[in-house]
Amino acid sequence: MDFPITRIKGGVGAPRGFRTAAISCGIKNPALTRLDLGLIVSDEPCTSAGTFTTNRVKAAPVRLCQAHLRKGNLRAIIANSGNANACTGVTGISDARAMADGVAKPLGLKRTEIGVCSTGVIGLPMPMARIEPKYGELIDTLGSKKGTDFAKAIITSDTHHKELAISFDLGGHRVRLGGCVKGAGMICPSMATMLCFITTDANCPKESLQKAALEAVEESFNRITIDGDMSTNDTVLVLANGASGMPPMRRNGPRCRQFREALGWLMLELAKMIVRDGERVTKFVTVKVKGAKTYQDAKKVAEAVCKSQLVKASWNGGDPNWGRVIHAVGYSRARIREELIDILYDGVPACLGGLQADAPMNKLRDIAARDAFEIEIHLNQGKADYEMYSSDLSPEYIDFNRSEYAYWKQARKDGLV
Amino acid sequence: MDFPITRIKGGVGAPRGFRTAAISCGIKNPALTRLDLGLIVSDEPCTSAGTFTTNRVKAAPVRLCQAHLRKGNLRAIIANSGNANACTGVTGISDARAMADGVAKPLGLKRTEIGVCSTGVIGLPMPMARIEPKYGELIDTLGSKKGTDFAKAIITSDTHHKELAISFDLGGHRVRLGGCVKGAGMICPSMATMLCFITTDANCPKESLQKAALEAVEESFNRITIDGDMSTNDTVLVLANGASGMPPMRRNGPRCRQFREALGWLMLELAKMIVRDGERVTKFVTVKVKGAKTYQDAKKVAEAVCKSQLVKASWNGGDPNWGRVIHAVGYSRARIREELIDILYDGVPACLGGLQADAPMNKLRDIAARDAFEIEIHLNQGKADYEMYSSDLSPEYIDFNRSEYAYWKQARKDGLV
Repeated sequence: MDFPITRIKGGVGAPRGFRTAAISCGIKNPALTRLDLGLIVSDEPCTSAGTFTTNRVKAAPVRLCQAHLRKGNLRAIIANSGNANACTGVTGISDARAMADGVAKPLGLKRTEIGVCSTGVIGLPMPMARIEPKYGELIDTLGSKKGTDFAKAIITSDTHHKELAISFDLGGHRVRLGGCVKGAGMICPSMATMLCFITTDANCPKESLQKAALEAVEESFNRITIDGDMSTNDTVLVLANGASGMPPMRRNGPRCRQFREALGWLMLELAKMIVRDGERVTKFVTVKVKGAKTYQDAKKVAEAVCKSQLVKASWNGGDPNWGRVIHAVGYSRARIREELIDILYDGVPACLGGLQADAPMNKLRDIAARDAFEIEIHLNQGKADYEMYSSDLSPEYIDFNRSEYAYWKQARKDGLV
Repeated sequence: MDFPITRIKGGVGAPRGFRTAAISCGIKNPALTRLDLGLIVSDEPCTSAGTFTTNRVKAAPVRLCQAHLRKGNLRAIIANSGNANACTGVTGISDARAMADGVAKPLGLKRTEIGVCSTGVIGLPMPMARIEPKYGELIDTLGSKKGTDFAKAIITSDTHHKELAISFDLGGHRVRLGGCVKGAGMICPSMATMLCFITTDANCPKESLQKAALEAVEESFNRITIDGDMSTNDTVLVLANGASGMPPMRRNGPRCRQFREALGWLMLELAKMIVRDGERVTKFVTVKVKGAKTYQDAKKVAEAVCKSQLVKASWNGGDPNWGRVIHAVGYSRARIREELIDILYDGVPACLGGLQADAPMNKLRDIAARDAFEIEIHLNQGKADYEMYSSDLSPEYIDFNRSEYAYWKQARKDGLV
């Protein structure tokens, strides 16, 4: 960025005029008191934007959020973890609606001003009997310093909560931008990926906010992959309440562009946090594709490399295996010429002109053993570039994802299915 | 098939008029005497057909085979394991050509009558110094009962060799069809996958043979996936020498159709052998998609499900996790309607109309615990079906594929790179 930003404390609670809350309803497990229901509310009306999973199997809250955003602007978001409310049919829709109603009335808002997000197991009905008695407690907990609690309430298999906030000068006014994300599995580039909530006290017209959100998602969450699986619930929601006191920014004006840049930066940082916290991940790998004929070609190459199980397994092993990288380049369907391809690990050539390069193997080995490294793939065919962020694939990931059966068995015992 | 076939002993050596050989050159490891160079020769001229990887990074022998097939018919095939001769530039091409020359002269054939196939590590030059002194020994070893040795000479990470032969009546003449395959990793549906060699003493015109081969590959090797990675070397070659004494079959005539059916059956059996022998595989899963709007929709759904890491991890865990199946159906880009989808495990419904079905969980759990089971996905939108064969993804697969570094280090020591 070509303007200074300051990191500030907190996440979604950091911008002015937002209050947040988080409580435990026993959605994840009735016996344990983990935070699993959260709320964000703006004191003033907001403009709002959202991007959603492109999976054709969409969770009920995704459908509800989309409908509410079409009708107008959100001013509050209720989110839960432990149950995705996906593949739950008409009951799922009415449960999501009930969650919106449950907080709308006491907050004095319309149902369509409430965004609803859920994440967790697919196919299990929402345990509404545990949620419904808790709306009062949730609202009573609202405060200006609970952003971190909210971030904790939305995580599932994440090892820790993920949040970030910044402030910067926008045309003479100090504005704040805060966000939190959850997601550690089912991460794959396509539209919005996982749950992400962004709040800001900047004053941004709805149309500009939606455009900025789409662009920022394309440059951040659509560029990360852990396991190539796209979820049914992926959602990014942005609320802008203007509480900084700045006048509305002009569409496509300089302040609008600056805001877009800051939003993009924040989302990219949050996206990278997701990769680093990927399920049983040990490496953070940046894949830079350069010199493709077109943007689409560059993107295809990056995605093929970042999704290849064999490439990811070699990352796990700390193996500078450029042969697997080039084979993924080959099947990416991008226009490539084998004899022009160079592959570098942190700047050290492993492959030049499609052939094994001369670099000492120990040097390459040392690079691939690092916790984070960068692979540059020069196609030498044009000027288009694309960058992606990915992780290794570990035996532990598979082990971790082998079975949710015990969970389901418990759910049956609890009379939930 | 609606006509009787008889399984007979052997593989590529079973049809009349073919001789095969296999020796050890130390390509895999100079210190160990594993079979790694094989030869198939027909006593008479053949018609021949081939299908090849669609990976744009193609190994040198793939390019050579394609060129030879364009010029005419193959009559012999030399194949090695231990080195893929891929990403080896112009040296690779001249090495592949030298391998063809090496056997063409003593056999009294033209270079273009020789098919060359290699499989193994990518990016390492062929150890020609170990291969070239051995052509004489290879040819001296030729015999009518060495088909199994040939099948052994082409395997790499396979746990065992894979071959099959059948005989059947074709318009009053007994004909034989034999084949062998190798492949246990880098298996993904696309054109020809892995190495497969088929011989037959049927009398089939080149054009019909090519058509039959393409159709058979589409219904067999293109329908299996272990890890979704497409190799640089995948090749299927079919040689037909007419030694059964039958008159040439008429194009698209009944004998031609019958032959095509038998070829398809043989390839499908060989393809299934590959899945069962997949790297560290514990399950064989048949995915049947039914009632799609179009063939392409059905195929997209089957491929998405069979390639999903999360679905494959759940298979490894013996978990009847229909939620992961339906989420892969959703992101397949096929036209689907969530509320119409039924998912059955060996005939027992796990999901009906997009919702959790009533079946006892123990029953589903018992099915998913089997070594082999079938998942039916009814889209209930049309009449198109598609069937695929896949495996689970195990922690041991990742562990097995973590590093080839030791191999490379040895290669450096041996002065190969």
